[in-house]
Amino acid sequence: MDERTIHRRAHNDYRWDDVAELPYKEDDRALFKSITRQVLFSDSELAGELRYFEVAPGGFSTLERHEHMHAVLILRGRGHCLIGHDVKALQTRDLVTVPPMTWHQFRATEGEPLGFLCMVNARRDKPQLPSAEELARLKTDPAVAAFLRGRASI
Amino acid sequence: MDERTIHRRAHNDYRWDDVAELPYKEDDRALFKSITRQVLFSDSELAGELRYFEVAPGGFSTLERHEHMHAVLILRGRGHCLIGHDVKALQTRDLVTVPPMTWHQFRATEGEPLGFLCMVNARRDKPQLPSAEELARLKTDPAVAAFLRGRASI
Repeated sequence: MDERTIHRRAHNDYRWDDVAELPYKEDDRALFKSITRQVLFSDSELAGELRYFEVAPGGFSTLERHEHMHAVLILRGRGHCLIGHDVKALQTRDLVTVPPMTWHQFRATEGEPLGFLCMVNARRDKPQLPSAEELARLKTDPAVAAFLRGRASI
Repeated sequence: MDERTIHRRAHNDYRWDDVAELPYKEDDRALFKSITRQVLFSDSELAGELRYFEVAPGGFSTLERHEHMHAVLILRGRGHCLIGHDVKALQTRDLVTVPPMTWHQFRATEGEPLGFLCMVNARRDKPQLPSAEELARLKTDPAVAAFLRGRASI
């Protein structure tokens, strides 16, 4: 059985008691910028995990896809995401669904961090990175190309 | 395959696009007061579900237990919870873990709503209500008895 702490207090800066701030990725090939990861809930009895990611102003998550889904709630700030070929402007508490095998990336707005909760299956596959050809194909859409240059809001 | 909306916008009042406000319980025997339920994420590909519950000022959830766990993040307001025999004061963004087969209840503070996210396994058992004997046993603890009378904060 897991050792469980039933109550973990929030701190002012979107940190929590007994929750470590972790490197975002262990995969050195992945391109990302200024993003941290905190695992809020992970337990042998839970089929899902709940994590909190925070992207610093101007930062972004890895552009990736995988078989497992993401269920995202924006907890802090504003930004944009790419889901497939759609670029969406995000506000606090918006919900984002990333379907299986769909390219996706999250970017913070300049000037404020973007923090989001992300529910995933505890058992899940590893993310895939786009090949040069796949990236080129994504960039044929001008809105996607602007998003990937960090210019979605202009 | 599920029909998936990738982006659902938040409204000001802790409501969302395409998310219905549901009755809290279908079980008529359950005692509760002034609480609503919204299912934010539920999908055949997700092993977990993410729900948002909102307890109006002075309201409370059902006192219950079950084999499945709850992973809770307070999204709005303040209140108290009972987890086993422990009464905890809750602030916004605090994390609460409800272990298997542990009596639990959430109560809003007078004067403001308590809103919380709750992650559960998609496949889960039905909640159990306390018998008169179990309730009497819980109330032998003065702090628990005060909580159940809605007097935890005094």
